Formats: sequence, C-alpha cells, structure tokens
Amino acid sequence: MTAEVGLFGAELRVVNAGVDLFADALGSRGVEVSRVDWRPPASPTVATLWRDEIDAANREALQRLGAAQPVLVDVRPALEVVPGMTPTTLLHAGPPLPWARMSGPVRGAVIGALLYERLADTPEEAERLAASGALTFDPCHHHAAVGPMAGITTARMPVLVVENRTTGNRSYATLNEGLGKALRYGAFAPDVIERLRWFEAILGPALGEVLRRIGGVDIRNLIAQAVQMGDECHNRNRAASALLIKTIAPHVAALDLPPAERERILTFAAGNDHFFLNVGMAACKAALDAAHGVPRSSMVTVMARNGTEFGIRVSGLGDRWFTGPAGTPVGLYFAGFGAEDANPDMGDSAITETAGLGAFAMAGAPAIVQFVGGTPADALGYTKRMYEITLGESEAYRLPPLDFRGTPTGIDVRLVLQTGILPQINTGIAHRRPGIGQIGAGLVNPPLACFEEAGRALAAELARPSQA
Amino acid sequence: MTAEVGLFGAELRVVNAGVDLFADALGSRGVEVSRVDWRPPASPTVATLWRDEIDAANREALQRLGAAQPVLVDVRPALEVVPGMTPTTLLHAGPPLPWARMSGPVRGAVIGALLYERLADTPEEAERLAASGALTFDPCHHHAAVGPMAGITTARMPVLVVENRTTGNRSYATLNEGLGKALRYGAFAPDVIERLRWFEAILGPALGEVLRRIGGVDIRNLIAQAVQMGDECHNRNRAASALLIKTIAPHVAALDLPPAERERILTFAAGNDHFFLNVGMAACKAALDAAHGVPRSSMVTVMARNGTEFGIRVSGLGDRWFTGPAGTPVGLYFAGFGAEDANPDMGDSAITETAGLGAFAMAGAPAIVQFVGGTPADALGYTKRMYEITLGESEAYRLPPLDFRGTPTGIDVRLVLQTGILPQINTGIAHRRPGIGQIGAGLVNPPLACFEEAGRALAAELARPSQA
Repeated sequence: MTAEVGLFGAELRVVNAGVDLFADALGSRGVEVSRVDWRPPASPTVATLWRDEIDAANREALQRLGAAQPVLVDVRPALEVVPGMTPTTLLHAGPPLPWARMSGPVRGAVIGALLYERLADTPEEAERLAASGALTFDPCHHHAAVGPMAGITTARMPVLVVENRTTGNRSYATLNEGLGKALRYGAFAPDVIERLRWFEAILGPALGEVLRRIGGVDIRNLIAQAVQMGDECHNRNRAASALLIKTIAPHVAALDLPPAERERILTFAAGNDHFFLNVGMAACKAALDAAHGVPRSSMVTVMARNGTEFGIRVSGLGDRWFTGPAGTPVGLYFAGFGAEDANPDMGDSAITETAGLGAFAMAGAPAIVQFVGGTPADALGYTKRMYEITLGESEAYRLPPLDFRGTPTGIDVRLVLQTGILPQINTGIAHRRPGIGQIGAGLVNPPLACFEEAGRALAAELARPSQA
Repeated sequence: MTAEVGLFGAELRVVNAGVDLFADALGSRGVEVSRVDWRPPASPTVATLWRDEIDAANREALQRLGAAQPVLVDVRPALEVVPGMTPTTLLHAGPPLPWARMSGPVRGAVIGALLYERLADTPEEAERLAASGALTFDPCHHHAAVGPMAGITTARMPVLVVENRTTGNRSYATLNEGLGKALRYGAFAPDVIERLRWFEAILGPALGEVLRRIGGVDIRNLIAQAVQMGDECHNRNRAASALLIKTIAPHVAALDLPPAERERILTFAAGNDHFFLNVGMAACKAALDAAHGVPRSSMVTVMARNGTEFGIRVSGLGDRWFTGPAGTPVGLYFAGFGAEDANPDMGDSAITETAGLGAFAMAGAPAIVQFVGGTPADALGYTKRMYEITLGESEAYRLPPLDFRGTPTGIDVRLVLQTGILPQINTGIAHRRPGIGQIGAGLVNPPLACFEEAGRALAAELARPSQA
C-alpha cells in the first residue's frame, strides 16, 4: 500500500476496465476504484475459424440435432443396459475427475452409492474404498449417459432408456429423486438410500413395464408442449412432469401390483416437480449424441460440470474435453442457507441448454424467476442473448412470448469467442459439504477458457488435411 | 340512390363516425365511406352511479370474491345434491329460455339428455316431449350450478360438488365430455349417450370416492398454478387438467375396480384437455355466489348465454337477469366448418371471465391464440384492457408476463358503461344445427344492452331508501 502511494506520490485512484479481479483486490485495500464493463476483443484464433467448411459441418450437426426423435422406451438396471457398466463402476457428472479432486457433494453421493450398492457398510468404509483405487470412476458422458448434479450412477440403479428413433442411438439417466435431501446433491442419509432401494425394487420395474407396454413416450412432443406451458425443462419441469404422469398413470393404474404400491408410485411422481428432469436430459443427450462427430463442426454437443471443473465437447473435436474451473451459481437459497454454503457448479443437466432448452428457453418460463431469481424481463433477456451465440432455432420448441419463435439452439464455439457472450445455464445449488443436499437454485456460466481451448483445437484441426 | 345524388347534386361521399350500420348500408350501395372509430359518450345513467355507497358495496363484494376458497369435495348424481332438482327437470345454460326459443345445439342437447334419461326412445319422441310442457326447463344458475355450452343437466348425471370453504356455499357442474361430438355442443349420437352412461356408472362414483377419501382438492391453488403454466382456465385447461389428474391419479390407481376400468378412467381424463373446465367453472361459481347479494353493489356476478340471449346478474340487483341478443363468436374453425355454421354464443362458461379468468387472464396464456385466433400480443392486450373495467386484481391468480400482476377481477357495470369497453370472453363454437357438436373456438363480447339495463336498474335502486 505504501509502495503504491509512493509510486504516484498521492492517494491512488484507479479506473479498472474489464476483469473484476484487479478492482476487487484494490477495492479490498481501500483504494477507490471506478469499474468499466469491458470485454477483451475476440481472440485472434476466432478469425481463422470463419470458414465455409465449418459452416457446412455446422449445418449438418444442427440438422441432426433438429431431426432427433427421442422416445422414452424403457427403464432397466444400469448394469443391464449402460455400455461398459460394471458392478464396481461409478459414473459421475462432468469431465473426468479422480476421487482426490472431488468436491464435498460428489463425495457424498459416492458414499451414498457405495452404501446403496452394499459395497460399504459405513460412510467411513465407503471413503476408504473410494480412495483405494479398487473402483472405476468415469464420466456419465463416456457411457451415453447423463446424471444431474453429482450424477453418480451405479450398477443396480434403474435407468431411463431414451432412443433417438431417427438414428437408433440410445441414452441413459437415473430416475429423479425429488428436491432437497437427494443422493445427486450429496445426501446419503438412510431415507435417501431407502428411496433408491424402492426405485430398484418397485418404481423402476413398474415404469419399465408401462413403457414397454405402451411402446414408449414421444419426448420431443412432450417437451414442445411443456415449453408452451412455462417450463424450460431444466430448473422448471412442472408441466413436463404433469404431462408425463398423465401419460403413464392409466397404465400404472392397471399394473398387477398391490394397490398401495400403485398409489405410492403415482404419489411419488406427483410429489416431484422434477420427475421429468432426467427424462428430458436423456432426450437431449440422445439428440446431441447424434449431432456429435461431424468433422470440423464447431457446434457444442456437451456442457457438463463435476463440481470442480466445467467441461465442453465439440462435434468436430471427437472425445476431447475442454475444461476450466467451475463457477459458483448466483441465485436464491432455501431458508437457512446462503452463498457461503454453495458448492461450485455441478451436473450434466446443462445438456438441456446445449440442446436449446433450460436458460436458453427461459423466455417461455417467466415463473421460474421465483426459483432462480431475477425478473420475467431477465428471463426474456437471457433467451434473446442466446440467439447471438447459436446456429439456429428449434423447429419443435417454440416460445409463445416471442411469437412462437423457436428456442436458440446449437451453441457455436466461434460465436461465443466472437461475441464474448457465454452460454447461460439454470442450475440447482448443492451444499459444499457431503451429506446435506440441495440448498437453492440459480444461474451460472461456463468459464471462457473452455471455448478458447476448443477454438485453438479447431484451428489446429483446420491446419490438418480434411478427412471428409 | 337517385334521391341521395339529387339531395347534394353530386356524387355522395360520406364520413361515418361510430356505428358501422350506416356505413355498411351506404357502402353496399357503392357510396364511398370514410369510417371514423367513435363511441358515444357514456350513458347519462352512469353519471348518477358514482356514489360512495356503491364503492363501499363493491369493496365488500370484491373482498368476498377474493376470499373464496373453492374446494372440489365430491361427485354425486345431480338428483341427490343439486337444490330443486327433479327427475323431469332440465337445467340449461344462460338466462331463462323456453323450448320454443332454443337454438339448434341447445335443442340437440335436450334431445340427448332425454334419450340418456330414458324419458324418450327416439329424437322425435324427445322433441315432442320437450314441446309438451311436461318438463321443467330452468337455468343452471337458478340451482347454484353452471353448465358449459348448452349446459343441459339432468337428474342422473353425476355432478362435481365444489364447496367454498370460506362461506360454506356449494356449487355444481357436470363432468366434461371432451371436445368435438359432445352433448353440451348439441350432439346426441349413441356414442355420446354411452359416454354419459359410463360417467354415471363408473367415472362419477370413482371420482366421488377419491375426492371423499382425500378430503377434497384445493381449486384456488390449482388454478393459481395453472395460470403460471399458460392456462386461462376457460378455453385452455391443459395445465389445470394435468395438475388435477396428477392429484387424483394415485388414488384412482388404488380403487377396488377392475384394472381395465381404472385404466379407462385415467385414459379418459388424460385424453381430455378440458377435463378441468367444469371444475374451474364450479369453483368460479362458488366464489361469485358468495359475492352476490351485496346491496347496491354494481359488480357483475354472472355472465351467461343460452345460444339465443346473453344475460348478466349484478351483486346488488338480486335474482334479476339483464339480457340482450347473444353475439356470434369470431375465431378459428375445425376443418370443414366456417362462420356460416356457427350458432350464437352459448354457455355458462363465461363465469370464468366473471371471476377474473378466461380472456381476462389471457396475457398468461399466449399459446391459446393457436386455438381462438390472434397473436400473443392480442392476448396481452385483452387482459390489459380488462383492467379498465374491473374493480381489482386477483391476489391468487398472478400473471408472470405482467410481472406477476393479479388478473383483472370483478367487472363493474359502471366502468363498462363509462368506458364503452365490453368484457372479453373466450368461448367454444357450436354448430347451429342440433346433433353435430363443436366446430371451433373464438372470442365474443356481451351486448352493451345488458349493462345499460343493469345501470338503469341500479339507478332505480339508488332512488329507493337503502335496506342496509
């Protein structure tokens, strides 16, 4: 401080343009700082990426995304259907992450899953096992799967099976547990584990039987309706859940189960406004997997967080992850919790934004601001801004408040770099300690670093001879 | 035409201010007419109605409307629960209407109801009976009931029972049959009658058992949610229906019925996006009945149409109806039908607008324009205009696109007369011939005459000594 004063021979006054880090540091030392909102010009890399071959590849990727017809066809134990699953595999959300780097709620979910799988009898034993190297940790996304929040998926858990009828590929996701104390938020109390066992014994098999009997549920159509009913299908799934329930309820009612179990199945579903969330995520995954792997395409096909890092994958860049540190959501907290309790951003649920839903569709979901904060005008603004960084507009998902304009769909790495506008994401907020659960919901962005790294990788690809 | 030219000694050119009748007549004779949108100044009557005693009475009426807590508590045969019901009573929508003046679809519904009640074996026999004077025709509204479209309600039909928990009064409405070929639209084919018999034998008793078991469903809360999910609860009930289904489904699933009947009940409900309509109407009726009968109040408590006349009732004007000719809705038609097929406006369903829903809540239901015509901007405009003629804003029903402003609630006869703005109503459109059914949906207004007559009656009341 003395050095600073000495440097200028007077009290320091600073104008800070852009990155708040400097302003915050000086401000904390009592220096008067005027802040100017400024973003650096687009990275030099992006200038090399405006090429016809990328445009053509993006048209192909976007066409595949738009043509997808995700249908919920079955519910089966993960071990039976998820490719590469083993009894000692634990899938997690986001990019690859060893036990040593896992945040509190992800560790909590690992502990809960090991208790559930009866691989450990106590939380302490579970932690030792997790650290022992005897288990396989792997991203859901490496197994055509997606998991909300911690995303921990293990062998016995029943998973939703969504088939993209256009291309035949399938995707998988666990069943949603409801809000609050849930494994995906890092809770592992006995009631959390008991609910998972009921999923395994009753709910999963019942839903599977119903879905096989009715030949599946058209999820694109269901989401299209829900988007006209105030859902954005990430943090607000009230309409989609009700529509899914009314579709399956007649068949659940006819199942050959004790009346109390039929009632419990529908009571659980009706009591969980996010019953649909994991279905929607799997549908988005099935659609985006079909759009992945178009050589030279700069379209983002995965955005996912593991509570430590944020990672993206890009259609034309194979299986590589481009990562940066996960941010912490800004939002509204349940009574008794605050920002100091929040874990950094986590979960594969940003697959909804990647497919043109979630915060990208928020203009159609103004009531969500009561859950994530802000005003209906903000919700409209988020969607409008996302048109700046997307390749097209959804044919299926149309927003009444924007005169039935399709949702902004297909994030272009180039447009993110060119505009400096980051994708907007709605998300739940987990407590940073294991064993507690959800404490709120809010908004978050990916780090720009993911897109910068992907941009450089695309530029490097272009320097190589085309495989097409 | 010669006389006109002779009058001015030259070709006639006319500026027409206001009433289109003159302009239309001249225009049809080839005279050039410039039209000016003009409305006559408020009727002289209204000037005498801006009195503190009316304001105070309206505050009381509006408070009673807002305080209502409608709960769906039961389903029972009409004969058991509807006050004054007899085996030969036929309740109908709107103001009183003898058989001789009934329009085609109302006659069709009467024929269907007589076949259903086994009071006649053929349509011809039913018509003879209807004309014989041996039956009692009476408005639903004279029996604390409401009926959509023709509104025909007879003894054996199961009716929804809604209780206003604040005041204890009850209201009644039949079960909704779905769109298209339905008794309420004047259809009476064998499948229409068979469905009513299934209502009587299975659906009604099952819903009644469920509702008694769970102690009722809070309809105010349910509508509040639905209004945030794109319903206006008159012509769009998709969210409300899904929410009601998810509430009752667990208990239907546990009923001691054959599995196929449990399945059929929920399949029927899930296949009818207007499953909730009649429930919502009964809830509005229960709330408005509590607000009726406040001496000197100019608040409208009933708007209803019988396919021939439009009628209103006013809180401070007792059981009198103020009527005028029913208009014909302007809207969208199902394939194969057009405006020339449309019957004049009918049904008690404008009870929703009277309670601050329907077209009054259209700002929250932009997707409805795909059903009734217009644009989302029109939907916003209808709601905004209704604030000009209403006494307050709903505490319970809040519109996200208007920053959670409450819906315009409590139509004031004085404000209608003062502004010349007529209440906006969403409605279904019936074919004008008996036996066909619904052919479209659209928008309509009451005739100004109802409000003028009510205004004169209020002025006459004020001239008498107060009873309060």
